[in-house]
Amino acid sequence: MAAQPGVLPRILINGLAATRIAALDRGLNYGDGVFRTLRIADGRPRWWSDHLAKLAEDCNRLGLDCPDATVLDRDLARLEPLPASGVLRLTLTRGEGPRGYRPPISPRCTRILTCWPGDGAEYPREGLTLRVCQLRLGPQPALAGIKHLNRLENVLARAEWNDPAIDEGILLDHSGRVVCGVSSNLFLWRNGRLQTPSLEQCGVAGVARARLMRRAAAEGLTVEEADFDLAALLDADEVMLTNSLMGLRRVARLGDKTWPQPLVGPRLAGFLDA
Amino acid sequence: MAAQPGVLPRILINGLAATRIAALDRGLNYGDGVFRTLRIADGRPRWWSDHLAKLAEDCNRLGLDCPDATVLDRDLARLEPLPASGVLRLTLTRGEGPRGYRPPISPRCTRILTCWPGDGAEYPREGLTLRVCQLRLGPQPALAGIKHLNRLENVLARAEWNDPAIDEGILLDHSGRVVCGVSSNLFLWRNGRLQTPSLEQCGVAGVARARLMRRAAAEGLTVEEADFDLAALLDADEVMLTNSLMGLRRVARLGDKTWPQPLVGPRLAGFLDA
Repeated sequence: MAAQPGVLPRILINGLAATRIAALDRGLNYGDGVFRTLRIADGRPRWWSDHLAKLAEDCNRLGLDCPDATVLDRDLARLEPLPASGVLRLTLTRGEGPRGYRPPISPRCTRILTCWPGDGAEYPREGLTLRVCQLRLGPQPALAGIKHLNRLENVLARAEWNDPAIDEGILLDHSGRVVCGVSSNLFLWRNGRLQTPSLEQCGVAGVARARLMRRAAAEGLTVEEADFDLAALLDADEVMLTNSLMGLRRVARLGDKTWPQPLVGPRLAGFLDA
Repeated sequence: MAAQPGVLPRILINGLAATRIAALDRGLNYGDGVFRTLRIADGRPRWWSDHLAKLAEDCNRLGLDCPDATVLDRDLARLEPLPASGVLRLTLTRGEGPRGYRPPISPRCTRILTCWPGDGAEYPREGLTLRVCQLRLGPQPALAGIKHLNRLENVLARAEWNDPAIDEGILLDHSGRVVCGVSSNLFLWRNGRLQTPSLEQCGVAGVARARLMRRAAAEGLTVEEADFDLAALLDADEVMLTNSLMGLRRVARLGDKTWPQPLVGPRLAGFLDA
């Protein structure tokens, strides 16, 4: 879902149309907050309730006071009409506070909704081409899984390539375990088993990943959270990426390795959309 | 240097008085930027040129286009007159950009100077009391040493205590090595040798730390960058913390362990101020 060049997003801050936030906001000063990126399809944010649940979970991990769903529902209503197709970003920060790392006693959370109209061209419809990033993710169980505002690892990893033929970069951890894509989660189909990297140490546990795991289990197909290295990935019968914008896409190429045909991908994509 | 309650800071954004920044700024959205915290004493920012040099170094590590010193000098001049005593924060972000981790091709850096008047009461003059934080820093050599805007580890660590008798928390890494304080660097005097933790894997390499190492060396006193654990810290003859606000302070207590008398601290503090 690429933003259309030259088209400015509409922004709502704490329920009001605005374009700027306080320079004293802890989201800016310390990355003290969390966010979600949603696809807008048919004028509605896809998987809205899943995203609100994940937002609450991430806030809880950081000791952030997550606004009630009714507050975020009302913010969303104020953004309407949404474009038929686009991207919605929902950001929550610990708000303004005095200088210093110490969280304020009674912080007032800052809510930012940003809506970009878009045409869905960011990811190709068929068969993604990957590379392996040089940057290795550092382990930090206190932050693993959370989509927080501390995203410099992703920024540095994404800065590694300019080749438009590359759709996504694969991130390994310091031990060589495969963790995720720069903006996506990863699934392997290998020897009749569906696996996804464990995210206990690093990486973001996306809503699409959770939906796929939940719906696959309901269909009798267990997804194993496992540790595996790049050799195991290259040995897989099918490799797939998920995120909330593209849903599920199969991988067609990584270096010299190609996966010419879809196997289980279309069935799994069906679970996700159900 | 505590900000005086109720006293708002003065803020300059890209050279103009302002209080708000663009909600699309990458500093907010990804923590994509760096910062410095300086003490204002006698109406001047202390160690200004050291801070500018460190800012340029940190920008270089992140591929950020650091403004020339002349630009930052001019910003500083526009903030004058500075309070006799206070805190100055200098933040640089990768500016606004389209959605997504990928850095813009030609980003226009955002410069934020924030000046709080203050009375210097944040740290006690004599003998700090420490605790050991439960949060362990994660290793990430690509970011280690940089004072970037991804500071959630520090926020979570600082949120661990409310006891006003505790001045600072000590951070260990996942292997149990001592790294730094939540807002400070650490030095040990042990068996006639001065040591500070290596910051190759995590932690911020502060300007006060670098000044102390440089000036101590000029006086014939080598500071060893070393790996040591909490037992070694407790076994030290003297423990000291540094940062740009407090300079150098000796530690008086950590749990049951006390260090009743200063040994080399006053001499080292003299190096720093020289």
